[in-house]
Amino acid sequence: MKTTISQVMRALTEPVGVLEPTVDTLKYGDPEAEVTGIVTTFMPTQAVLEEAVELGANLIVAHEGPFFSHQDSFVQALKQDPVYLAKDACIREAGLALFRFHDYWHRYQPDGIMEGLLEALAWSDRAVRHEAVASVVQLPPVTVREIAQYVKRQLGLSYVRVTGGLDQTCERIGLLAGYRGGGEHAIPLFEREQLDLVVYGEGPEWETPEYVRDAVRQGRGKALIVLGHAESEAAGMKLLADRLQTRFPDVPVHFAANPPIFQVL
Amino acid sequence: MKTTISQVMRALTEPVGVLEPTVDTLKYGDPEAEVTGIVTTFMPTQAVLEEAVELGANLIVAHEGPFFSHQDSFVQALKQDPVYLAKDACIREAGLALFRFHDYWHRYQPDGIMEGLLEALAWSDRAVRHEAVASVVQLPPVTVREIAQYVKRQLGLSYVRVTGGLDQTCERIGLLAGYRGGGEHAIPLFEREQLDLVVYGEGPEWETPEYVRDAVRQGRGKALIVLGHAESEAAGMKLLADRLQTRFPDVPVHFAANPPIFQVL
Repeated sequence: MKTTISQVMRALTEPVGVLEPTVDTLKYGDPEAEVTGIVTTFMPTQAVLEEAVELGANLIVAHEGPFFSHQDSFVQALKQDPVYLAKDACIREAGLALFRFHDYWHRYQPDGIMEGLLEALAWSDRAVRHEAVASVVQLPPVTVREIAQYVKRQLGLSYVRVTGGLDQTCERIGLLAGYRGGGEHAIPLFEREQLDLVVYGEGPEWETPEYVRDAVRQGRGKALIVLGHAESEAAGMKLLADRLQTRFPDVPVHFAANPPIFQVL
Repeated sequence: MKTTISQVMRALTEPVGVLEPTVDTLKYGDPEAEVTGIVTTFMPTQAVLEEAVELGANLIVAHEGPFFSHQDSFVQALKQDPVYLAKDACIREAGLALFRFHDYWHRYQPDGIMEGLLEALAWSDRAVRHEAVASVVQLPPVTVREIAQYVKRQLGLSYVRVTGGLDQTCERIGLLAGYRGGGEHAIPLFEREQLDLVVYGEGPEWETPEYVRDAVRQGRGKALIVLGHAESEAAGMKLLADRLQTRFPDVPVHFAANPPIFQVL
């Protein structure tokens, strides 16, 4: 039976209702076209486009947008940029459809990205509280160093960045995916949830990390582990591929991992 | 001769004129109090406050604010936070004055932060162009790996993060201090200035780095080195200490370095 792009989009957005405004729009493609295969990914990179073509999949469902900006705010400034032009041409010539799935997935109950991250960390049963932008995990006493090593192993990371003492013991951990590591979200959480440790994806460097540094200097045992933005959200897009495969058993569904964006030198 | 806090603030802001609005205000202290010593720093951490007290200096001139937010946007949410309360009490009890010097220093001609960074990199003579938020440096052909190692050595960094090929050759480099690494500033610069490499302080992870990754995938030789926010701006605050010492020879002026905010694990 034929599955169209609009059927997939409907299935993805239905559990939430209608969000306005949203960045989750069909960036490329004909909604009535038949889906030959789906690739989910964190970032729809040039490499992911090529992978989709090789797999014979014509629908990419990506957490972030193709042109390096959450609101596409400077795409106008890129209209003569060779990287933009080549990527745009590649998508059109390959006949790829590209749907961004960001706001809706975060509004699932529970948040789909957080659910994927908790599963990847094998902490789903340890979560004692879910807030809109954070979950709280309760563990038996363990050091920051042990958690950092555990997280690296579970998520397949080559490094994490840490503020605070590695030998400090933790039990209550706040987990924030994506760009939710900013002070506005993460700092008040320490006191409200009596956290020992925050683990987040990305956030401004002199907000939450500097709060933790000052807390440590004042003799309070706090710590922070920074995963990286993609590193904290990719598992949620992998989980999405599993969900889509179950929902559309006749359509081949793949998850395309992005290699680490940085190497540490 | 007595030097007051307001005299120091006037000397610092005079070359620019009056900026409105600005985050550069006296956060603590009496403008008519006599200055016993000045400490310049990137981040006025708990440790820097203690260092100022030990040095007998009662005026801290800091690039960033004390409470983990550029616009102090969530300070209200911290009014019961023990880290906030202890830091606030420490500043008041020690009788410290705290002046933020961010917008004005960036508006100096040339930008004081950029001037300090270029000096620290020994690239002042290599700068061929200064824009409002970036400078362009022209070097004899050199690999990304060599530049990364050079930058680490000059700035005393234990690591940098790199996107793109390490063995690629570069000649034209765009340099952006602080949080100017976002796509809006950094991405159009590649094409406009025909850059091989951008070196920036901090920016969102899926903006400029993903542009560089796509460019590389398309066969364009581009690369990115990420220094860290403080790592890119501290030299400018050290330069400021030298300038203040020259301007106020009778006042002891110190630069307080912040240790690295992260360790990589």
